Amino acid sequence: MKTLSFKTILLVGKYMNAAALEQMQDDLVSLADHLRANNYQVVLEENSALDVRLGTYQTLNLDKISSKIDLVVVMGGDGTMLSMARSLAPVGVPMVGVNRGRFGFLTDLVAEDMPGNLDAILDGDYIPETRLLLSADLMRNGEAVTSDIAMNDVVVKSNERLIDLEVKIDQMLVYQQRSDGLIVSTPTGTTAYALSAGGPILHPNLHAITLVPICPHTLSNRPITVHSSSLIEITIKQVNGGLLALDGQSFVNLELGDKVILKRAPQAVTLLHPENYCYFDMLRTKLNWG
Amino acid sequence: MKTLSFKTILLVGKYMNAAALEQMQDDLVSLADHLRANNYQVVLEENSALDVRLGTYQTLNLDKISSKIDLVVVMGGDGTMLSMARSLAPVGVPMVGVNRGRFGFLTDLVAEDMPGNLDAILDGDYIPETRLLLSADLMRNGEAVTSDIAMNDVVVKSNERLIDLEVKIDQMLVYQQRSDGLIVSTPTGTTAYALSAGGPILHPNLHAITLVPICPHTLSNRPITVHSSSLIEITIKQVNGGLLALDGQSFVNLELGDKVILKRAPQAVTLLHPENYCYFDMLRTKLNWG
Amino acid sequence: MKTLSFKTILLVGKYMNAAALEQMQDDLVSLADHLRANNYQVVLEENSALDVRLGTYQTLNLDKISSKIDLVVVMGGDGTMLSMARSLAPVGVPMVGVNRGRFGFLTDLVAEDMPGNLDAILDGDYIPETRLLLSADLMRNGEAVTSDIAMNDVVVKSNERLIDLEVKIDQMLVYQQRSDGLIVSTPTGTTAYALSAGGPILHPNLHAITLVPICPHTLSNRPITVHSSSLIEITIKQVNGGLLALDGQSFVNLELGDKVILKRAPQAVTLLHPENYCYFDMLRTKLNWG
Amino acid sequence: MKTLSFKTILLVGKYMNAAALEQMQDDLVSLADHLRANNYQVVLEENSALDVRLGTYQTLNLDKISSKIDLVVVMGGDGTMLSMARSLAPVGVPMVGVNRGRFGFLTDLVAEDMPGNLDAILDGDYIPETRLLLSADLMRNGEAVTSDIAMNDVVVKSNERLIDLEVKIDQMLVYQQRSDGLIVSTPTGTTAYALSAGGPILHPNLHAITLVPICPHTLSNRPITVHSSSLIEITIKQVNGGLLALDGQSFVNLELGDKVILKRAPQAVTLLHPENYCYFDMLRTKLNWG
Repeated sequence: MKTLSFKTILLVGKYMNAAALEQMQDDLVSLADHLRANNYQVVLEENSALDVRLGTYQTLNLDKISSKIDLVVVMGGDGTMLSMARSLAPVGVPMVGVNRGRFGFLTDLVAEDMPGNLDAILDGDYIPETRLLLSADLMRNGEAVTSDIAMNDVVVKSNERLIDLEVKIDQMLVYQQRSDGLIVSTPTGTTAYALSAGGPILHPNLHAITLVPICPHTLSNRPITVHSSSLIEITIKQVNGGLLALDGQSFVNLELGDKVILKRAPQAVTLLHPENYCYFDMLRTKLNWG
Repeated sequence: MKTLSFKTILLVGKYMNAAALEQMQDDLVSLADHLRANNYQVVLEENSALDVRLGTYQTLNLDKISSKIDLVVVMGGDGTMLSMARSLAPVGVPMVGVNRGRFGFLTDLVAEDMPGNLDAILDGDYIPETRLLLSADLMRNGEAVTSDIAMNDVVVKSNERLIDLEVKIDQMLVYQQRSDGLIVSTPTGTTAYALSAGGPILHPNLHAITLVPICPHTLSNRPITVHSSSLIEITIKQVNGGLLALDGQSFVNLELGDKVILKRAPQAVTLLHPENYCYFDMLRTKLNWG
Repeated sequence: MKTLSFKTILLVGKYMNAAALEQMQDDLVSLADHLRANNYQVVLEENSALDVRLGTYQTLNLDKISSKIDLVVVMGGDGTMLSMARSLAPVGVPMVGVNRGRFGFLTDLVAEDMPGNLDAILDGDYIPETRLLLSADLMRNGEAVTSDIAMNDVVVKSNERLIDLEVKIDQMLVYQQRSDGLIVSTPTGTTAYALSAGGPILHPNLHAITLVPICPHTLSNRPITVHSSSLIEITIKQVNGGLLALDGQSFVNLELGDKVILKRAPQAVTLLHPENYCYFDMLRTKLNWG
Repeated sequence: MKTLSFKTILLVGKYMNAAALEQMQDDLVSLADHLRANNYQVVLEENSALDVRLGTYQTLNLDKISSKIDLVVVMGGDGTMLSMARSLAPVGVPMVGVNRGRFGFLTDLVAEDMPGNLDAILDGDYIPETRLLLSADLMRNGEAVTSDIAMNDVVVKSNERLIDLEVKIDQMLVYQQRSDGLIVSTPTGTTAYALSAGGPILHPNLHAITLVPICPHTLSNRPITVHSSSLIEITIKQVNGGLLALDGQSFVNLELGDKVILKRAPQAVTLLHPENYCYFDMLRTKLNWG
């Protein structure tokens, strides 16, 4: 499946704590040197570069990313993949993840097998996969307050205890819900927060979005899965300190009467998996189905 | 939406107990007379006719159903709808249900509003909806033992306590599972048995099938939803008395080594809903989300 | 079962919104007059009295409640019962609830049957029931920051997304948990928040406390029920804005390293139920098991 | 805690398959020789002896077990512990388990550390723990059909799909339930089948019994935990092939109208744990809370 050719590669590295910084520096330097030795153009994401002080490589601020980048290699965990996915969405650059984090549902490449496993991908031995994104508009008094994108989930939740929500799909009332909040998840997000809240796992090739209530007052308020073309509207009917959370990373305060409009984003993310990748193998490993 | 024209109408009636028989007789006679008075050709399903002794109407054995029937009107509960759906699948006749049963996720027409609500449908004021069906082949020693169709779910389960299953999807291993059984459900079936077992609700317009384990030994064995084009293969690795159940109505004994092959059936069922039908309204009412 | 004799009765009334205020005023006036006419000494809780401007009755600030009060009659919902229970715990006055709220797991008397149903209780026809309370001490840098009592539950939770907790029971490590939070519930609280989070219902006569994780990262982190004599210690290992909540009514901010010490409170609450009260009947009605 | 002195020790060994037989023979011979060398009187359970053909040791049929046995050492899994517990209940001999099975919530001794870990127990370094048992009487037409004991759980379930049950506790109606069945579990059983069905974990020192519905039709039919002194009565109101199962090992067919009477058995089981045993450590390991 040799459809893309990679010339310019952006490297991103995130470490979870000070102890991991040195390891990350070594990894990034090794990888950058290896790629340059193989005639790729290497660019370092600005913050990653700062951390590792790699003076001899060109750096790039993510706000200025353009289609001149052919591939992004992310060393980190799922959190880093999510934040990169949101940044990269507008230009549509494919991503590949190297697992340096806790879980790694999204970071397929085993760090110990680097750089061989990355070389294989660069040589064209990969499985591309498109993951849908959610766009979320927060409307207040008829005006858009914020507008953003999420790869995993958009969550409307209370700070303290209970929030009253009204949910409509394609203009039709689904329910008035009294709960700790509501998770609206892409298939990608169904192995993350939504799973902890009792949601189903959705295969990434489904054109679907799932709504998972968090601790709903009404016990029969179970997760519902709808088509990804659905227009989902969540209105805050009562709240005492609420939050809109995107991928558990970006937060906006919610007020009474706020309306969150959710739909499939026009953009998508392309992940490149190694050729031996299998979604079910990954699930089995990460969820200890052994 | 006046796309179909109905000339010949098949009436089916099921009652849940002796007390309901007389009511059903009255209902069927009234309806048959009303339809004949309005110049429809009325045919009675053979068993229903037997129950009500309606000598003046033509009767039909379901095994001989053909495309000369334009519409089937079912008076009963979801169970009757399911068994009719399996019988009607080969000829593809649309169905409409009048609720005389316990729950009625599938029987939209309120009995009290008959025959006005049915007249509206006959006049073309309806919303047609296609529901996917599952086909299940039971393979033993390389040969097909049975082959059947389900509208709600296909369940592989143990008679006594535990069954060991291996599940593959499109030839890929999903898991080895130790449980009471596994429910494979269409979107239609997700408000039935699958829901009781902790499965998600899937909107009927999704091209999806969900696998819901029943009391799995491994607590992280959560429901998975996959595309309806998936080929699902369940192999019995250990069993002490097992059953294959279709819609909770048709049962076959399972043996060690049996393989159940599941895929979307080539046929589908068409339901006709009244014009004010809304899936979410129906959920809200039936699941007490008030 | 005529063991207590009631002379002085404290009346408390809470209304949920302005629309309910007038109703509450009427109810309180009627009840106060009725009781005075029957030779009971009537005292009005200060805030309730303010709301209803009942100038001719003695009022009482809850902070000054003493054992001179023989019975407290609460008109409101479970929330009012909970806050009264915390206030009354030090003096141990029995309570009876008249349901004017949403749910009423704790308010047994039907408002429509007043005052006859209350008269019966005053005449000695009641079932007394003791409900255990939890005491919670928040320790920071070795010092007690707050110390309080809860009737339903003590909840340690994150404001935003995840909190890392370490839980010890009687000095033994139970788990390190990554979740939205942890509910520690009395039997009384098991029909409230804990139930929404997937916890079990505990009969009020059990000497037990249950720990129910909220959306735990590890799917096998299931509710655990331990003896009410247990000493439960929750240490905040990582947090980005956390809260300690008592009965969903009283909140304290949590910081990294905080330790919440939970144990059965020395005090308890006595509820007086009408003679036809049955815990299972109440569950069946409130949880729609019909 | 040197309260018991052990002179006569009964050895029991169960293997899960032919491959494990040889291992078990070696283990039993080694252990028997070791104990005899240390001046204990060794008796072999008859079936175990048959398997290992240990001609030089006295054998014992479990039906003839008496209080002359001071300790039973079980090599196997939880299943073996359960069946031994039921056999030993009448004479009250303490048990210790050596883990040779799959899970081992009950078999504390690590096989690799034998015989040192057993010697420590024989020397008096152990923690004794009493586990309550359930007694189950099956009544049909007013007569007791069977009467038996369970250590984990008593399960009333359907063979095929749905069973209608009426549950009373201490003569009070709890609910009419439509489900796949109902698990009544001791605290010991809460880490077994009941856990798979969504039940809570109950600490073994609780005087409690939990009722866990299996796939209940009514979604709010959640697990209920009651005091172990409760009298639980389950009546079969509708069934199409049902089973009464004790510890998932002993089965009796159920008929319409059958009544299952459950209460705490007068006998109990005493487990001897090694001195470093901790219930929560065990949970953490077995349930992968790491």
